[in-house]
Amino acid sequence: MSPTPEALAAARGALAQQSIELPSWAFGNSGTRFKVFAQQGVPRDPFEKIADAAQVHRYTGVAPRVSLHIPWDLVDDYDALARHAKDLGVTIGAINSNLFQDDAYMLGSLTHPDAAVRAKAVRHHLQCIDVMRATGSQDLKLWLPDGLNYPGQDSIRARQDRLAESLQEIYAALDPQHRLILEYKFFEPAFYSMDIPDWGTSLLHCLALGERAMVVLDTGHHAPGTNIEFIVAQLLRVGRLGAFDFNSRFYADDDLMVGAADPFQLFRIMHEIVQAGALAPDSGVNFMLDQCHNIEPKIPGQIRSVMNVQEATAKALLVDRDALLAAQTSGDVLGANGALMDAYNTDVRPLLAELRVEQGLDPDPLAAYARSGYAETIVAERVGGTQAGWGA
Amino acid sequence: MSPTPEALAAARGALAQQSIELPSWAFGNSGTRFKVFAQQGVPRDPFEKIADAAQVHRYTGVAPRVSLHIPWDLVDDYDALARHAKDLGVTIGAINSNLFQDDAYMLGSLTHPDAAVRAKAVRHHLQCIDVMRATGSQDLKLWLPDGLNYPGQDSIRARQDRLAESLQEIYAALDPQHRLILEYKFFEPAFYSMDIPDWGTSLLHCLALGERAMVVLDTGHHAPGTNIEFIVAQLLRVGRLGAFDFNSRFYADDDLMVGAADPFQLFRIMHEIVQAGALAPDSGVNFMLDQCHNIEPKIPGQIRSVMNVQEATAKALLVDRDALLAAQTSGDVLGANGALMDAYNTDVRPLLAELRVEQGLDPDPLAAYARSGYAETIVAERVGGTQAGWGA
Amino acid sequence: MSPTPEALAAARGALAQQSIELPSWAFGNSGTRFKVFAQQGVPRDPFEKIADAAQVHRYTGVAPRVSLHIPWDLVDDYDALARHAKDLGVTIGAINSNLFQDDAYMLGSLTHPDAAVRAKAVRHHLQCIDVMRATGSQDLKLWLPDGLNYPGQDSIRARQDRLAESLQEIYAALDPQHRLILEYKFFEPAFYSMDIPDWGTSLLHCLALGERAMVVLDTGHHAPGTNIEFIVAQLLRVGRLGAFDFNSRFYADDDLMVGAADPFQLFRIMHEIVQAGALAPDSGVNFMLDQCHNIEPKIPGQIRSVMNVQEATAKALLVDRDALLAAQTSGDVLGANGALMDAYNTDVRPLLAELRVEQGLDPDPLAAYARSGYAETIVAERVGGTQAGWGA
Amino acid sequence: MSPTPEALAAARGALAQQSIELPSWAFGNSGTRFKVFAQQGVPRDPFEKIADAAQVHRYTGVAPRVSLHIPWDLVDDYDALARHAKDLGVTIGAINSNLFQDDAYMLGSLTHPDAAVRAKAVRHHLQCIDVMRATGSQDLKLWLPDGLNYPGQDSIRARQDRLAESLQEIYAALDPQHRLILEYKFFEPAFYSMDIPDWGTSLLHCLALGERAMVVLDTGHHAPGTNIEFIVAQLLRVGRLGAFDFNSRFYADDDLMVGAADPFQLFRIMHEIVQAGALAPDSGVNFMLDQCHNIEPKIPGQIRSVMNVQEATAKALLVDRDALLAAQTSGDVLGANGALMDAYNTDVRPLLAELRVEQGLDPDPLAAYARSGYAETIVAERVGGTQAGWGA
Repeated sequence: MSPTPEALAAARGALAQQSIELPSWAFGNSGTRFKVFAQQGVPRDPFEKIADAAQVHRYTGVAPRVSLHIPWDLVDDYDALARHAKDLGVTIGAINSNLFQDDAYMLGSLTHPDAAVRAKAVRHHLQCIDVMRATGSQDLKLWLPDGLNYPGQDSIRARQDRLAESLQEIYAALDPQHRLILEYKFFEPAFYSMDIPDWGTSLLHCLALGERAMVVLDTGHHAPGTNIEFIVAQLLRVGRLGAFDFNSRFYADDDLMVGAADPFQLFRIMHEIVQAGALAPDSGVNFMLDQCHNIEPKIPGQIRSVMNVQEATAKALLVDRDALLAAQTSGDVLGANGALMDAYNTDVRPLLAELRVEQGLDPDPLAAYARSGYAETIVAERVGGTQAGWGA
Repeated sequence: MSPTPEALAAARGALAQQSIELPSWAFGNSGTRFKVFAQQGVPRDPFEKIADAAQVHRYTGVAPRVSLHIPWDLVDDYDALARHAKDLGVTIGAINSNLFQDDAYMLGSLTHPDAAVRAKAVRHHLQCIDVMRATGSQDLKLWLPDGLNYPGQDSIRARQDRLAESLQEIYAALDPQHRLILEYKFFEPAFYSMDIPDWGTSLLHCLALGERAMVVLDTGHHAPGTNIEFIVAQLLRVGRLGAFDFNSRFYADDDLMVGAADPFQLFRIMHEIVQAGALAPDSGVNFMLDQCHNIEPKIPGQIRSVMNVQEATAKALLVDRDALLAAQTSGDVLGANGALMDAYNTDVRPLLAELRVEQGLDPDPLAAYARSGYAETIVAERVGGTQAGWGA
Repeated sequence: MSPTPEALAAARGALAQQSIELPSWAFGNSGTRFKVFAQQGVPRDPFEKIADAAQVHRYTGVAPRVSLHIPWDLVDDYDALARHAKDLGVTIGAINSNLFQDDAYMLGSLTHPDAAVRAKAVRHHLQCIDVMRATGSQDLKLWLPDGLNYPGQDSIRARQDRLAESLQEIYAALDPQHRLILEYKFFEPAFYSMDIPDWGTSLLHCLALGERAMVVLDTGHHAPGTNIEFIVAQLLRVGRLGAFDFNSRFYADDDLMVGAADPFQLFRIMHEIVQAGALAPDSGVNFMLDQCHNIEPKIPGQIRSVMNVQEATAKALLVDRDALLAAQTSGDVLGANGALMDAYNTDVRPLLAELRVEQGLDPDPLAAYARSGYAETIVAERVGGTQAGWGA
Repeated sequence: MSPTPEALAAARGALAQQSIELPSWAFGNSGTRFKVFAQQGVPRDPFEKIADAAQVHRYTGVAPRVSLHIPWDLVDDYDALARHAKDLGVTIGAINSNLFQDDAYMLGSLTHPDAAVRAKAVRHHLQCIDVMRATGSQDLKLWLPDGLNYPGQDSIRARQDRLAESLQEIYAALDPQHRLILEYKFFEPAFYSMDIPDWGTSLLHCLALGERAMVVLDTGHHAPGTNIEFIVAQLLRVGRLGAFDFNSRFYADDDLMVGAADPFQLFRIMHEIVQAGALAPDSGVNFMLDQCHNIEPKIPGQIRSVMNVQEATAKALLVDRDALLAAQTSGDVLGANGALMDAYNTDVRPLLAELRVEQGLDPDPLAAYARSGYAETIVAERVGGTQAGWGA
């Protein structure tokens, strides 16, 4: 029942290499269509967002990159932004485009019936690619909010054809080391039909684009009852899992802290990752958070989320693979399930606390952050200006 | 297969008495958490909203009342507002309270752990009751956005107790002719647990309050797979169906035009209404729309919605009740289903067109509105000022 | 609002060419895990099943083929069976394999950890291919019931690899004119993870197999909220929609009569078919029913189902494509939705009645069948023997 | 983070008093509508079922009662059955009626349009009450499989009225110490509309019957996304939670081992129980398993299930209530969630192992059962006869 010292050491080694990317927009205000509740001390520009993200890395040691969102994180001087990040111990990660906040996109962007709107949306990605060049980012992340609210509103099929064409133009503009990572989402902001509603659609477009087009799996973007770890396994099998957007969801919305709604599911997902050797830094899978914090404080919310991913990963690393395989091979249903559950039921918090101490960190990141006074400082200092707002 | 002349005449009689209440907020801008797309000509105050609502009644003849939402529709002089409405051929309907846009309500309103916040939320309803007195409205509609995003965030049970207490205070403040109509909603804006998530919870509170507390059934507020007409039948059976909030929904959001997502479901709902005799004006069931229009023009969106309800009602009225009952009683599954489907498959648009002509209306409300030039007029005239925004 | 004579004539022409394949197992007894209620007059062998299926064709004129299920429909002399069918005016359609009723398959068939079980399951398909040769059938239909009930029970990924290998062996055994059509199913009989749970998985395996491997879309096999017509459009776009299994479902089970749960959805599906020109007999899409009748009589249940598909098709054919395209292109949301709804709201039963009369059929197939006395005859004659039982 | 010695001692005290009732039908063969896979050594009569159930109690110490299902567990001599149970250390628990396997019930039982069928179904309960008298059972458990497959098939409302009447007759026949416990189920075996689909309907009927009518909450009987612990809290609040039927479910079916699909949900449910003081033996809540084992061995499946409930309970008992309440009261969202998660993340297996040793049991029930040789004995001895089959 208890993991062996060898298993613990191996897990610790893998955990020491893990990294999780943070979204800059997690630190701004966010909410529902009903209300955005403002919080004190929220960043007013990309520099402040990166400063907050760096706090998460400072106390967890596993969050060294920050995704940007364009145009929210447009600055005049990306060298300055990159230096600022470097000074704080972090780097710039994926560049996210925005296809949902321009008035032109009411009926679509890359799939819009009007070629002029599609061209505008393609051009926006060229701007994003420029930011990638300026920041050294390698991943262009594209989430398509396009879709239909009403049956008949537009041709489902024509939109797929337009999408394929628009994506080709964007892909062609990438540098050789760049990747296009393409997200799918079951519903919202369109309610009848999303133009990339499922992994199958995202994958078909990636296959048509080329080898550097990969699928992004957002854990909150599936129909109820969908087995997400199956999709993880399938995308790994065909070599097209480019990244995770981690968050969690009960019925709808997709902005709860990852692992908050169903920690067992997160463990099962990480189990597929570990089984496939995809945790390694060179696996090509970018582990990102994509969540906002509507009612909880933002920096602690991100710290907690990072810790949830770490705990699920630690449990997945402690699965006794020999016992599991033996039970699976012999058709021992309860034994195989039991081997998995043994790892899940293990309390890995002491292991992670030890790992942090080894790395010169406080064993309790949330307490250390609370003691640091940073929260009080930003509340006092960030007065005036416009608070950063939210995005997907 | 074709309805008899007697059946048609009876249906026409019932349809001539039908009325549907419109929400003032349907005419303002609305959207998702991602973006509110503004439309030209949108009202800038409650007077303009009522003017737009009156257009819907003008062309359909069945939408003579307008619900108000407080504080959005606060005015200085309710007599003036009521006269304005009357001049345009409509009256003020239900008064809706708002518990989701005050900063104090981030963690709840009527269920908040802090008694001062609960008292504030109760006081808001006293203000609403004053508006009822000023406008002659009889229904205080309460939708509770309160709930939890995270397990453990607050005590589920304590919140029920607080809710019961808050509702008692509000109910006690009503005049004898007033009703409290209490909505439930499966999810959103809270994502782990809503404080009134289902009809059972709403009904329990209504039973505790007294005879003038009734349940509001919003057609978009249920878990997937829920049989809504069953709930309609059950609430009618216990005499507690106070009102409908009509709209439609595929997976989430609840602001598509009623009947747009599943017209057969709307028909089945109206079939329960007709079977129970609850279509009659004195049945105590208030048939209201509660939907906003994110991408379609708002007045035509409301006209279309009203027509969808009319068509579903007409089909329900054409069900051959004798044939249905005979098949049901004899266990003829296909015959009974067939009797229902015969009515559903009937094209009732000619019947409704005739009815309109009889009433001195244009047979085609959408075309008549389009020809009227009203849309162009408001675009030209409503320049400057702040457009009215959205609510639930 | 009313279709033009030209539109009606074109629709009639297309409808006259439509054909729908019936499942032999629809005529046997079926039920839930709780109970199979036996009906009188149920067939006792494949010959009697075909006789019943021929009744459906006799009264509707659009159901000229019957799918067989192996081993349920194994006979000694397929020539005799084919002649019997021909004498009754029908032919043999797709051959369905069975991977769920052999004791060896408790933990899987084509994906089982034990190579011997996989080999057995592959061999069963060789037998099915022999039946295809004997009957002239061109479609080998494979629905995979394999999956897991518990997390960890087996390796999700290893099962995909085994599946790919097993499918290769089966595909290699087909004759050049044969197709392998591969179904997916969201859940059941496995409850944690199906080995082919979605269209993406089915398509990936088809792409790996070759050009004669096609996806089967069963309308009852999706997660709640899934937009099925999107999948139809997507599979048509990539040329891999091989067939439909029509039925309907509210929450679970997938054996209600097609069109019974959501007739508007069926219409939207047929709209995608018509838009893509895939209704034509040579489109490569086989329109099949796959449903059983638990509580309604079986032959009328099939007649009604066939009529439901016809009605949805007729409505789809009546969509004013010019008006639809014009509204879509100009961003007229309500106009485009309205063009679709105009067709849906049309009562097409008179059109189909006329078509039947033109074809020498009774305008009312259910009434004609009821008058025929066939039901009474089979109850009287089919006494003794074992009634045919149910399959997926 | 670690529980105090006092907290552990208190938890141990509460766990020592916990009891879980087993279903006799868990030990017979079961399956899906596709296939029942037979297992070796399965009981052939109620005596053998009780012997198997007693094994679960022998190794866990918390499963001292066995529910019976009538007519499956009808015997000639209930004194002999009760003595047999007593000799093996267990007693007879709730008596379950069966309304789904008689041919007369195809279209309903207590709600059937035909009064003669309803009378038959009522009479069956009189027989069950006789068994209660013979066995000393106090709970009559009624799960109603009645419902509709097709819209229009019968009147939803008339069925409620018939149901109310039938239940009155049954309730009137109970002895004063008897309870009627009434289950609800979202779907299956009826697929359009169940006659008791939700807790609201069950509660309304219980309220109409009287104080000894209580709701049974089956954890697998809800729409997706339903917050089950909310219902637990609500039913406890109104004093009408009579019992649990524990099991788990991903999308459909409801026969996976409790805690297997979502262990966090089970913990949240037990948290509501503990918070309300409803774990105590005299709380009136009967904690029962209701699950069958399709592919896993049955006795170990039950042992594992019992252990899952124990572990969830232990975690719920370790919640630091003071810390939780303080965080909730002060609006500390992350702190309150964290207090709950701290308990959930604790590994309680050592605590339960200690408790077993204190009670003279083996710390590892599954291993002890495996070593006992009982499984091999029953395979060898139970040859011939008819294996017991499955029920809901």
